Amino acid sequence: MLTVDISLSLDGFVAGPDPSLEEPLGRGGERLHEWALSTEAFRSRHGGSGGAVNVDSDMIDETVRRAGATIMGRRMFSGGAGSWEDDPRANGWWGEEPPFHHPVFVLTHHAREPLVLGETTFTFVTEGIEAALEEALAAAGDKDVAIGGGGSAVQQYLRAALLDELQLHVVPVLLGGGVRLFEGHVAEAPAELQCTRNVASPTGVAHLRYRVVK
Amino acid sequence: MLTVDISLSLDGFVAGPDPSLEEPLGRGGERLHEWALSTEAFRSRHGGSGGAVNVDSDMIDETVRRAGATIMGRRMFSGGAGSWEDDPRANGWWGEEPPFHHPVFVLTHHAREPLVLGETTFTFVTEGIEAALEEALAAAGDKDVAIGGGGSAVQQYLRAALLDELQLHVVPVLLGGGVRLFEGHVAEAPAELQCTRNVASPTGVAHLRYRVVK
Repeated sequence: MLTVDISLSLDGFVAGPDPSLEEPLGRGGERLHEWALSTEAFRSRHGGSGGAVNVDSDMIDETVRRAGATIMGRRMFSGGAGSWEDDPRANGWWGEEPPFHHPVFVLTHHAREPLVLGETTFTFVTEGIEAALEEALAAAGDKDVAIGGGGSAVQQYLRAALLDELQLHVVPVLLGGGVRLFEGHVAEAPAELQCTRNVASPTGVAHLRYRVVK
Repeated sequence: MLTVDISLSLDGFVAGPDPSLEEPLGRGGERLHEWALSTEAFRSRHGGSGGAVNVDSDMIDETVRRAGATIMGRRMFSGGAGSWEDDPRANGWWGEEPPFHHPVFVLTHHAREPLVLGETTFTFVTEGIEAALEEALAAAGDKDVAIGGGGSAVQQYLRAALLDELQLHVVPVLLGGGVRLFEGHVAEAPAELQCTRNVASPTGVAHLRYRVVK
């Protein structure tokens, strides 16, 4: 099953306007992830300690447990425009021990050998989103394949009607601009959705889960 | 207090694409209101009977009880482009007994005398959104003023940072185009939001309420 778990602002943005080196997620964009970063589940996963033990933490925990492989866009792997095409040795911004601990497939136009960092192997797929999905499903075994992001990768899978489940974490903030999750996504492939869960959080985040009916 | 209660698609549209006489809410736009129209509260309010007695019905009931006056855009009063400017006697599309039963203020550029239909008086305000709000607050007494819609009226009040509360009914449907609720709304007036309620419904609608912190 192909799933996506993504935080977005109440006005529908997955990143704020005017991304820069200082604010790679755009103005205000970091606020979309504060709820996740403050949880015990996230911190322990990233080698930290402490953090909130609450519904938000349960969400992170569940998402981590269900995913057997991740697909991500090239920018999510290594940041802003061109940074690793310019330097093919670049290892992305995930550090020596990326938090995935399962196979990651990076959508890119530039072929390169797989990269092993800690317990995570990054495979670079140049044959398009369907090829990446096929490889990821095989690697995930009986677990799910998660689209890690960013917005563009999610949009491509939405548009191609390949998503099975969509979990949106709606954060109570208005960004007023940036990257919209839903932008020209269903003109070609209308999808029927079924809301399968709505979890309220003490932090004001609405965790909404939808099944795509094909 | 100025509130808005509005249904929107998961992809953020309050009306679908390509509105026409047959589909004034655009392609698929009627699906945004099915949850409300099927409730006991809505039906009894509109002189009908039957309907679902559930959380959705409670939402409608609460919204109706809290509002002492309504503000609406000209199109919401009388439909598509120009229809009542061309015919100043036009009584809108609300019939002989509109469902409001309280004062309604219509934002318009064309002055006209108040119109009384059943228990509802429509007052036409040409002096702008702040004047309409002032009149409506006075008329509402200790109740709230509700912005009835459409999207453009809500956007104007959002942009002017005049809203106190925002209740979104997120319907599990992707419209893929149409009128966005949030479009260039906070460039001038950033707002801090606080999620004060998240009610899950058996129909899959997420009823999300936010307080605007000024």
